[in-house]
Amino acid sequence: MMKTNPGRFFEDFRLGETIRHATPRTVTTGDVALYTALYGPRFAVQSSDAFASAFGYARAPLDDLLVFHVVFGKTVPDISLNAVANLGYAEGRFLRPVYPGETLNTVSEVIGLKESSNRQTGVVYVRSTGTDAAGQAVLSYCRWVLVRKRDPEAVIVAEAVPTLAKAVAPEELAAALPPLDAAAYDLGLAGSPHRLGDYAVGERIDHVDGMTVEEAEHQIATRLFQNTAKVHFDGFAAKDTRFGKRLIYGGHVISLARALSFNGLGNAFSIAGINAGRHVAPLFAGDTVYAWSEVLAVAELPGRDDVGALRLRTVATKNQPCAAYPDKAGEGYDPAVILDLDYWALMPR
Amino acid sequence: MMKTNPGRFFEDFRLGETIRHATPRTVTTGDVALYTALYGPRFAVQSSDAFASAFGYARAPLDDLLVFHVVFGKTVPDISLNAVANLGYAEGRFLRPVYPGETLNTVSEVIGLKESSNRQTGVVYVRSTGTDAAGQAVLSYCRWVLVRKRDPEAVIVAEAVPTLAKAVAPEELAAALPPLDAAAYDLGLAGSPHRLGDYAVGERIDHVDGMTVEEAEHQIATRLFQNTAKVHFDGFAAKDTRFGKRLIYGGHVISLARALSFNGLGNAFSIAGINAGRHVAPLFAGDTVYAWSEVLAVAELPGRDDVGALRLRTVATKNQPCAAYPDKAGEGYDPAVILDLDYWALMPR
Amino acid sequence: MMKTNPGRFFEDFRLGETIRHATPRTVTTGDVALYTALYGPRFAVQSSDAFASAFGYARAPLDDLLVFHVVFGKTVPDISLNAVANLGYAEGRFLRPVYPGETLNTVSEVIGLKESSNRQTGVVYVRSTGTDAAGQAVLSYCRWVLVRKRDPEAVIVAEAVPTLAKAVAPEELAAALPPLDAAAYDLGLAGSPHRLGDYAVGERIDHVDGMTVEEAEHQIATRLFQNTAKVHFDGFAAKDTRFGKRLIYGGHVISLARALSFNGLGNAFSIAGINAGRHVAPLFAGDTVYAWSEVLAVAELPGRDDVGALRLRTVATKNQPCAAYPDKAGEGYDPAVILDLDYWALMPR
Repeated sequence: MMKTNPGRFFEDFRLGETIRHATPRTVTTGDVALYTALYGPRFAVQSSDAFASAFGYARAPLDDLLVFHVVFGKTVPDISLNAVANLGYAEGRFLRPVYPGETLNTVSEVIGLKESSNRQTGVVYVRSTGTDAAGQAVLSYCRWVLVRKRDPEAVIVAEAVPTLAKAVAPEELAAALPPLDAAAYDLGLAGSPHRLGDYAVGERIDHVDGMTVEEAEHQIATRLFQNTAKVHFDGFAAKDTRFGKRLIYGGHVISLARALSFNGLGNAFSIAGINAGRHVAPLFAGDTVYAWSEVLAVAELPGRDDVGALRLRTVATKNQPCAAYPDKAGEGYDPAVILDLDYWALMPR
Repeated sequence: MMKTNPGRFFEDFRLGETIRHATPRTVTTGDVALYTALYGPRFAVQSSDAFASAFGYARAPLDDLLVFHVVFGKTVPDISLNAVANLGYAEGRFLRPVYPGETLNTVSEVIGLKESSNRQTGVVYVRSTGTDAAGQAVLSYCRWVLVRKRDPEAVIVAEAVPTLAKAVAPEELAAALPPLDAAAYDLGLAGSPHRLGDYAVGERIDHVDGMTVEEAEHQIATRLFQNTAKVHFDGFAAKDTRFGKRLIYGGHVISLARALSFNGLGNAFSIAGINAGRHVAPLFAGDTVYAWSEVLAVAELPGRDDVGALRLRTVATKNQPCAAYPDKAGEGYDPAVILDLDYWALMPR
Repeated sequence: MMKTNPGRFFEDFRLGETIRHATPRTVTTGDVALYTALYGPRFAVQSSDAFASAFGYARAPLDDLLVFHVVFGKTVPDISLNAVANLGYAEGRFLRPVYPGETLNTVSEVIGLKESSNRQTGVVYVRSTGTDAAGQAVLSYCRWVLVRKRDPEAVIVAEAVPTLAKAVAPEELAAALPPLDAAAYDLGLAGSPHRLGDYAVGERIDHVDGMTVEEAEHQIATRLFQNTAKVHFDGFAAKDTRFGKRLIYGGHVISLARALSFNGLGNAFSIAGINAGRHVAPLFAGDTVYAWSEVLAVAELPGRDDVGALRLRTVATKNQPCAAYPDKAGEGYDPAVILDLDYWALMPR
């Protein structure tokens, strides 16, 4: 009997099935230190137990994206080992803070299947849920990936394209955080004087700084998340691909852009929802990442007078600073753009 | 008086002497996170406190090879600073799980000395024992290294070649683990459906995946283990060596091969013994490591109905996938082979 | 309103003003593991809880330079974002051990301002103080940096050049450490037989070993310290600078030199004071760092019979081993020299 995991092909997925993923993972302050070292985030809530507990947390919670990557990594061997491309994200909700010492698991439900017209591939839609050791959800999101068929002739029994929300509603964000004391949030220590009310819809912010990515860095990060996608690690096999080199995990770009966004969004301390996300172009080692953001909406959260939500669109580029806000262009994007992420960040009011 | 450590030369070792090594080291969840980030292991027992404690551990133990590398690293300044080559390992026994927060020390006994016929070098055999803060052994293994003489004319007083076991006996493995509850071992979460009885002697498994190694990665790993061997770090001096570049610590290859072996051996969660090990050829940054394994034996452990042992031979290669199981060839090995490791892994029954 | 931080220019500083820096940071065993992995320190006190507590500490304290870098990193966005060069350090005092779990903050006082004669730049002198969560100082040091003016015509209101001590007095070092039990300090485990009395003024020690630095390593380190200086990270922008590549954070060199100095100074377990420091030349990825030290003074500490102080000058070079002690030469330095650091290290008597 074959002992290695060949991964699922498109025809192996069944609409409505639930997939429990390996490997359970206890996240620790060791993971937090590595996350800091890999991306350089400076949001005070995640950086300081003292700051976080004065504000109302039990202690410094994990960076939301560290939670996301750990939860995501578990899905790779079951969902995307034979994927051609990661197409998008939607309906991402961070349901409560995760603290060092907690154990994370992931389950996914297949919520959509759509064969490609050439019958070589198909799109798999899953809703993945990260849970704690007790099985309570801490994160939920949908993603869809283009997956190869093992056999183009295989017949797909049931197909469906799910209807996904264009955006997470602000009222769904309110439970993401414990009750907080906005007066105890020290703007000086946090490094930015701007509260929620200082941001205006339509405002654009160039995050200015750039970060060059090395092979060792993205490999260390991707292994930390126990993400096993071969394209990120096997430089020998990569020589025969269309790119000729290793691809950087798309989540690495998201974390870099988020860390860069501190310069301009220093009090947007928590990601509570992911409305939409697209990896527009691949990133490779040696490239330098820049980012800019646009404020799409400013929202109050029902029942909360401590924090409100900024709907942000953060665009990341490679090898092009963002003073000119490189963006969509014609049918596609400016060729420098690599990421277009639409999300909700929470901020003290 | 000379303050720096020149290391011992062959004629400085005395048969039967005991060497206490520096530096004591408290291993932490920080080390665990780095180990995960450097190699990408996915064995559930070491990854999750919840999984490990349900199975019968106090919490997630350290990866056995992390313990090995930390114990090994301490021996370098005393044993192998003037080594020409690390020749082999035998009689390795992991005696109990090590947990974050414990402090490790190492002592070595010189169990053999054999001068080379050209009198330029000699083989030093040591049995090294890793201990906890109370001095209790947690790991024991023999290794032998070819060490330069300071003075070819120096006379070696006592020589002896130790008789080392071809393999650790299964009954010596039984104490390596606490009593475990095999029924509580969740195969789904662990990521592989195969228990001990599913493996057959002679079975070969291609672990499929490849991992390219960067200079920063092996340096970060080797320093983490406080292994000071100059050949791994000094690129300037390396330019004048026969390889012209830094050599990667052999233990880095072992850990990469072990992590790759998860794909096919996902429930072989603990290494309990090392029967024999040989670094067949050097590895350099930029090379991609692959691995395959052969099942040499399947053994029950006396008094244990929870776990049994697989005797495995894991062969690692560079820049050559292992679908064809590259192996010994004629007097030597296929030129792609870099590691040949014979060990016992424990698995739920 | 502009949301990003443009950094202060020379004319923005006011003599006597106090600047509270972001971002508070809880340091953990995760940070300790990364520090070990990045530099390879082997001082037993910082490596082992068991060793440290037998000696008189609560547990293993953080490496003093890890504390320094975290405290320093916070000052960058406010002090040196528009700096041309980091000119020097003085009056550095480590006031007590810092342990994992503590939260660090930094405040700086502007103690000097001196416009350059060309009016394009000016030297800013600050005294920066690292504090714990309760606001108690753990580290204090002065540094001065050459900072660009936004407007060369801007008039500087008040100028002053502070008088800084040539060296920290030994009596100021005594409080840096808790009462220790010199008899409990195990020289064998520490890895060096030399106590304070074994070192003589004028003695020079070649630390022998070399360490080649990779881009990924210094970036990971510098982000760990939440130091945001663009020159260390943005390889794309660096192409248009006079060096054409990323510069390595000077503190990275200090930590490398300190870790290399273990070989010869194995019991100089704590840095208690920094008398003077100068980054003589820049370091780039691919360079190999070596170091040598000179004993400038051997001092008893008032009221302490457990430890004494060595005043050391450690010189680091790039791509040149230090057997010949490369040093000052004529008006400047041997071209291989990159660091000249004068500091007090404590050692068991």
